[in-house]
Amino acid sequence: MPHSTTGRGRPRLESTDHRILQAARELLRLKGPAAVNIDSVAARSGVARTTIYRRYRSRNELMDAILEHLIDPAPLAPELPVREKLRWVLDRISDILENRLGPGATAAVIANSDPEFTTAVRARLAARLSSLTDLMKLDIKTGRLHANLDPDTVLGILVGAYLAEVLRFGSPRDGWTDRALDLVTPAVTPPRRRRS
Amino acid sequence: MPHSTTGRGRPRLESTDHRILQAARELLRLKGPAAVNIDSVAARSGVARTTIYRRYRSRNELMDAILEHLIDPAPLAPELPVREKLRWVLDRISDILENRLGPGATAAVIANSDPEFTTAVRARLAARLSSLTDLMKLDIKTGRLHANLDPDTVLGILVGAYLAEVLRFGSPRDGWTDRALDLVTPAVTPPRRRRS
Repeated sequence: MPHSTTGRGRPRLESTDHRILQAARELLRLKGPAAVNIDSVAARSGVARTTIYRRYRSRNELMDAILEHLIDPAPLAPELPVREKLRWVLDRISDILENRLGPGATAAVIANSDPEFTTAVRARLAARLSSLTDLMKLDIKTGRLHANLDPDTVLGILVGAYLAEVLRFGSPRDGWTDRALDLVTPAVTPPRRRRS
Repeated sequence: MPHSTTGRGRPRLESTDHRILQAARELLRLKGPAAVNIDSVAARSGVARTTIYRRYRSRNELMDAILEHLIDPAPLAPELPVREKLRWVLDRISDILENRLGPGATAAVIANSDPEFTTAVRARLAARLSSLTDLMKLDIKTGRLHANLDPDTVLGILVGAYLAEVLRFGSPRDGWTDRALDLVTPAVTPPRRRRS
């Protein structure tokens, strides 16, 4: 959607840059990297091919621009009880898989249909998850999480909880977050929390 | 590979039926439903198109034949301690996702690139998982699993544990099963097992 509407209902043209990138990101999210090229982005954005080529000399340059912001840095973790902290982590993971990668890019990585894209996404995903791992390590150190916990396994389980919902039902069912947290929270909480 | 070799190294022709279905299943596993058609199956199997058309009047009939055996009925569950029973469940899930669906069909379902295929796979997967849910319900009844457990959530977590490995690493890393079981087993085990 290249337009946003003002209060008076008249469409205001968004910047050309924004329209190009938004169209490219939507194509990636819905259909994967194979669907992203100058022609398809021109068609979806309504921006002329020549205008796009003035900004991106090739499809590769356009893909690089999308990848750069595909998975943004982790925001600061809030101070929360274990269950709510896990919910926050799960929300971050859902944001990456739903709003940034989307089903199209997720499927492309799973099928490895574009090896260069797969490598680029995996590197970004690993960096992003590793910042979440660091947070969990800190919580293990301070005794808020179980001492024997492997943070990477917990993150894998949370990533997977989302993926399984998408595989089985297309998109996560209502209440899936709570059901996953009901199972995972006791497993990551120290057996007796005697400190205050 | 249409041939298997005998002890003396001479290739023995496998049945034409087998070669056709095997080629179609491999294409589905690796590249998804869009890659399965009479031409591609002919090329991969080495069986002539006319021979394939004599058995399957259309690509749809061929797909139906593959779908029929895509996810076979659950084998009888063995009597095992909780952790080993979970491992057995995880092995069944891995078999479905790795050997039957494969990355190609899994990705196609996630991206919903062929809605008819998605619906057919989801129905089969749901039936298969529901037989595993029934097993867990029985174990809850007999006190081997935690009384408050939601079996469907546990199965979703196990399906997801596999999917997350594939998304992040292409195929599951060594030891992933044990790491997942380390986390999930205590979460599904009753707090005090006082019965013998």
